[in-house]
Amino acid sequence: MDENPTIALPHTPAHDGPAQSHQMRRPGSLRRTLARESFHAPTSITQRKKSDASLRALWVGIAVTQLEGHRVAIGLASHDGTYSIDISKHTLVIDIPTAEDRGDKLARFLVDKFDHYRQEHLFKFVGAGMTQKVVALAPALPSLLWRELDIVPVVFPNDSARSSYPPRVRRNSGLVDEEADSMARKCVEKFGPTLQPRLQVGIHHMVEVDLGGQAEITRFGDYALTVGERTWEATAKCIRSLKERNIRIAFFNSTPQGGGVALMRHALVRFFRLAEVDVRWYVPRPKPDAFRITKNNHNILQGVAEKDLRLAQDQAKSLDEWAESNANTFWVSPDQPLASPEEGGAHVVIVDDPQMPSLVKIAKEIAPNRPVIFRSHIQVRADLADQEGTPTSEVWNWIWENVKDADLFISHPVRGFVPSNVTFPKVGYMPATTDWLDGLNKNMSNWDSQYYMDVFDVECFKQRMNKLAYPDREYIVQIARFDPAKGIPVVLASYAKFRRSYLKGHERKAIPQVVIAGHGAIDDPDATLIYDQTIADIAENYEDIKEDIIVMRLGPTDQVLNVLMSCAYVALQLSTREGFEVKVSEALHKGTPIIATKAGGIPLQVEHGKSGYLVEPGNHEEVAMYLHKLFTDTEAYEKMSRYAEDNVSDEVSTVGNALCWLYLADELSNNKTLLPDSKWINDMAREEAKQLYEDKEARLPRLKKLELNTSQEPEH
Amino acid sequence: MDENPTIALPHTPAHDGPAQSHQMRRPGSLRRTLARESFHAPTSITQRKKSDASLRALWVGIAVTQLEGHRVAIGLASHDGTYSIDISKHTLVIDIPTAEDRGDKLARFLVDKFDHYRQEHLFKFVGAGMTQKVVALAPALPSLLWRELDIVPVVFPNDSARSSYPPRVRRNSGLVDEEADSMARKCVEKFGPTLQPRLQVGIHHMVEVDLGGQAEITRFGDYALTVGERTWEATAKCIRSLKERNIRIAFFNSTPQGGGVALMRHALVRFFRLAEVDVRWYVPRPKPDAFRITKNNHNILQGVAEKDLRLAQDQAKSLDEWAESNANTFWVSPDQPLASPEEGGAHVVIVDDPQMPSLVKIAKEIAPNRPVIFRSHIQVRADLADQEGTPTSEVWNWIWENVKDADLFISHPVRGFVPSNVTFPKVGYMPATTDWLDGLNKNMSNWDSQYYMDVFDVECFKQRMNKLAYPDREYIVQIARFDPAKGIPVVLASYAKFRRSYLKGHERKAIPQVVIAGHGAIDDPDATLIYDQTIADIAENYEDIKEDIIVMRLGPTDQVLNVLMSCAYVALQLSTREGFEVKVSEALHKGTPIIATKAGGIPLQVEHGKSGYLVEPGNHEEVAMYLHKLFTDTEAYEKMSRYAEDNVSDEVSTVGNALCWLYLADELSNNKTLLPDSKWINDMAREEAKQLYEDKEARLPRLKKLELNTSQEPEH
Repeated sequence: MDENPTIALPHTPAHDGPAQSHQMRRPGSLRRTLARESFHAPTSITQRKKSDASLRALWVGIAVTQLEGHRVAIGLASHDGTYSIDISKHTLVIDIPTAEDRGDKLARFLVDKFDHYRQEHLFKFVGAGMTQKVVALAPALPSLLWRELDIVPVVFPNDSARSSYPPRVRRNSGLVDEEADSMARKCVEKFGPTLQPRLQVGIHHMVEVDLGGQAEITRFGDYALTVGERTWEATAKCIRSLKERNIRIAFFNSTPQGGGVALMRHALVRFFRLAEVDVRWYVPRPKPDAFRITKNNHNILQGVAEKDLRLAQDQAKSLDEWAESNANTFWVSPDQPLASPEEGGAHVVIVDDPQMPSLVKIAKEIAPNRPVIFRSHIQVRADLADQEGTPTSEVWNWIWENVKDADLFISHPVRGFVPSNVTFPKVGYMPATTDWLDGLNKNMSNWDSQYYMDVFDVECFKQRMNKLAYPDREYIVQIARFDPAKGIPVVLASYAKFRRSYLKGHERKAIPQVVIAGHGAIDDPDATLIYDQTIADIAENYEDIKEDIIVMRLGPTDQVLNVLMSCAYVALQLSTREGFEVKVSEALHKGTPIIATKAGGIPLQVEHGKSGYLVEPGNHEEVAMYLHKLFTDTEAYEKMSRYAEDNVSDEVSTVGNALCWLYLADELSNNKTLLPDSKWINDMAREEAKQLYEDKEARLPRLKKLELNTSQEPEH
Repeated sequence: MDENPTIALPHTPAHDGPAQSHQMRRPGSLRRTLARESFHAPTSITQRKKSDASLRALWVGIAVTQLEGHRVAIGLASHDGTYSIDISKHTLVIDIPTAEDRGDKLARFLVDKFDHYRQEHLFKFVGAGMTQKVVALAPALPSLLWRELDIVPVVFPNDSARSSYPPRVRRNSGLVDEEADSMARKCVEKFGPTLQPRLQVGIHHMVEVDLGGQAEITRFGDYALTVGERTWEATAKCIRSLKERNIRIAFFNSTPQGGGVALMRHALVRFFRLAEVDVRWYVPRPKPDAFRITKNNHNILQGVAEKDLRLAQDQAKSLDEWAESNANTFWVSPDQPLASPEEGGAHVVIVDDPQMPSLVKIAKEIAPNRPVIFRSHIQVRADLADQEGTPTSEVWNWIWENVKDADLFISHPVRGFVPSNVTFPKVGYMPATTDWLDGLNKNMSNWDSQYYMDVFDVECFKQRMNKLAYPDREYIVQIARFDPAKGIPVVLASYAKFRRSYLKGHERKAIPQVVIAGHGAIDDPDATLIYDQTIADIAENYEDIKEDIIVMRLGPTDQVLNVLMSCAYVALQLSTREGFEVKVSEALHKGTPIIATKAGGIPLQVEHGKSGYLVEPGNHEEVAMYLHKLFTDTEAYEKMSRYAEDNVSDEVSTVGNALCWLYLADELSNNKTLLPDSKWINDMAREEAKQLYEDKEARLPRLKKLELNTSQEPEH
């Protein structure tokens, strides 16, 4: 970074120039078209492909000190994970009357500077460290860094500027470069080997989401732009009520990472922190033995376990003891979440996991009048649970015995997932949700999209996989775990049918590739099995097209999945069994037309012929036909893409999810009794807030109550 | 890892089986031939090239509890940097009478288990966490992990088994799997984004080498196998004397990372810790302004700076103040290193850096009788320093003014690096050294060599560089920084001459490639300039052969450089200016014949016609001729390779380096006055220990005293 320039900025509107084009877009803004088009634009990163350099990861440190006469001293430092590689000082004159505008100007100056630097020097900034003092001067800076440059901002207390090199030495406002260097080093320490911020579980086994709040990637106001006004108003009302009454809410589940519950919970707790609602999230001490049993239970509940696998009495007992021991050690003392509200415990307890169901019982024993909500996120085979003597019924009955005293029983909005011994008036529906501002869904700049496509390319090279030819050729994508229920063989069969029947004789450049990719620990035995089967299937049955099939197990970087979904021409979700698939919501939100199966909750998510196509599970001929249609009928394609991104319901996003929990917590903590009786919690919340649905508002279709068939057509 | 097997091991000699073939080899054992041959052996990792999987980084946690009846319970866990991916428990019966043999057996069991696991599941284990309790049961385990599996062992205090999840809970010997899981997680935290253990600078700015000693990669006894008996005996004598007298030694230099001084110092402090000699290493708080000045000084001293660049008065003053402020803040209080020995300060102070020369003055002011050693590791252009009015003389005189009261002045063994105002009786010579047990030089297994070649391949892909065809084709390597003095244009010219004159008409497979590679921050402006010049040079002048030229800037992973040097057919070091090049020592030690220039100290390192070939700087014709000879005369090649690895002097290794410092500290702290008068410190140490050189012992040649010409032929 260049040395000691003094730069005077004229007084111009705060949000001018590049800021505009980066502003948050509501669904409907053709974000996908933009993402795809930008790929073809000439930029330095594209030129790079012909040059020598590669994008290296860097961390940056920022320090700012207010000087006299509208001047600020800025220190910037960059660090490559091993060494400090560049440090500079700048003086900036910001002659603008209001502090807010000055702050925006400062934030804009820094963001533009990093943008310029990365383009010139070809670096990928991963994280940026700064003190709260910097954020006080430029409040928009952290979220701007995340939104526009895909940098994770890490905000440290003011007195930590040098604490990595104890003992503390005198602080001198002239030392902005030293402070920046220290911030860069401290920032690096927060990132693990996968370039992700480290997951932290703190005292009392509370999950410290976003580095305990230090990674300030969003601001509260950002969320208002992600949903409609009515959702936002209803949410704001609940927030006010809970804040006024100082209500404490505690979530419990079994693991802070991996899987949908944890993903949703991180996004939710981030939102609640910004909303200043007192929500905390607890997980138990990991116990390998318990995990083995709960994994089996999971498979048994879904009806996909080996026939002989059952939950033994002593195993159930050991799980109950595990929950009890964690509760006793961490959570029942005064001021801890399971203590009674009078003793400082939570006013509302939410157990979102069938792995520690006895926490419901424990919470009720301690404070019988305190509301407890149980959420069942598993696609329980209710039909098997209802059959006496099946392994599923045994596991289910153990769970139910523990949770039956909960005030509410929350399920995916699929009747077939709720066994019939559940107290039906207590059943309420909530869909799984995803977050429009996190790495999986946020709009990324051309630069960052290409960076993550590069990361994917390198990963393909490492795994000795075929190369994705995009942007020279289009591709079809299915993003899903390597799981027997995800219909991967159908993806292959559909693609082959499409190739062999519809694309015969086309030149290679005009033929799309197919990408089958998913997050997943490489050592998950199920995943390995399905992955190997897929590779064998390709070798055996798809020799003629195998060079265009890309099968990838990916690491934990959300943005790689984001860019893969954003740039795909068509997405597939050909599951044979499904709960409520957030990947479908994500494809729609990005305006990527999707072909999906009528399995579980998917028919609630896709409007056949409008936002995508629904097919019977396993019907690859139909999939191929729709692929052909989408690849040939450009007008229909564009219309579908636009309809999809214009009609994503607020219900499937973090704010929609928050609204449901806030509503429940608000009502229950006001001593109201709620009996949803299979209503959607979202409807109850909107009703209570007097923010009823308008006709034009996107909304998931509601099934008629008590319908048993899970694959029926919903009422659109 | 498989579940709960009980395994009984028979009583067999402790070092049987695979252990043997992995034992440390003295130079002379054809390590290079083995490394190269193993590459062609059929192994799972070779097969992998045809398969689907890629090597992912994993961390492992190990817990062991002694049970009754010669049984131990073992917990093993693995972690991929984000998630725990596998946890298992084992019971092992070790029916062997002595604890030592039981420990060896346990270590061997674990090492074999990991070896098996990585071959079966295709993982690269990066680090292994365990408590001291595990090391007490199997003392050989940490160093075996490093030596045989290239795993960095991290040994934690016993009470830290769960401290990452506070508060502490009951410890139960049955919970080995939980403890292993905790150890795996704690181990991951010690590694940064580059998969290297984090560098730590602790209280009073002491450098905490090897994670403050927690990364126990070597044992003291390992070093005995790296040098001859006489060197070892002399070293042991000094260690005894210093330990008996509780002598405290403190090293100071300006940076804990990057550059030769820091590399040597890490290896040295590691050795001293194991030897239980009280040696500590201190660095200042980083100060960007100071670094800018000292970088200029460095170039001015070497005579490679811009003509107009000079050390301004206020810059010199600011450097002096920097040293003083660090001394006052961190080092002068009682029990700190610069306090007088009576107040708990160091008995011997060593300042190994021309960047804070005033530390010599400060140390002498505090305790005039305490010995202070100054080492000048820069290739000072003494001729320019001696010329009044040159920028070099100005910088030099500032340094000299600060260090003239030092008791000794240590230099590279090149007379031309010592300006003539130095007090000559105080001058002693010590060569730069390298470490035979660290990542740069240790013998690596076939598996690990291939892993790091893979890492190099991926890095080439990322940087859009040509692919190294090894092992299908041979290659020539120069490993050096991208620095104007490293003669990179000569490497290209030599390779081109060799190709065009000697290999015309050969089939491609028989033609070697050339690799030019070096560590280096991508943002070092010098490095970028030279790198860009190299790429331009290739485009302009070597179009016909450019596909076989691989130019790479590499990250901080020592083992990549190790494998590149080990597997090369010939190494080059065609510097135009040089100090004492450890890369030359490393090539010889690996038995890789080297062609090098007669620059600086290189003629001391290579015996022309025996261990390599020496050419005049810039003479590419001669280099090509020797390349041709080495590639065609197999017998001469093999003879040279063997001679090279059989004749590496102990002087260029960590123990040789330690011996010199120990000897100096021992003598000086005994109030002896040393006046080397341009002798080699090694000779004085060996003499004092009565361990004189034998005729057959490898030894660097000594130049006649006071010879001024740096490029003359030494007396071999």
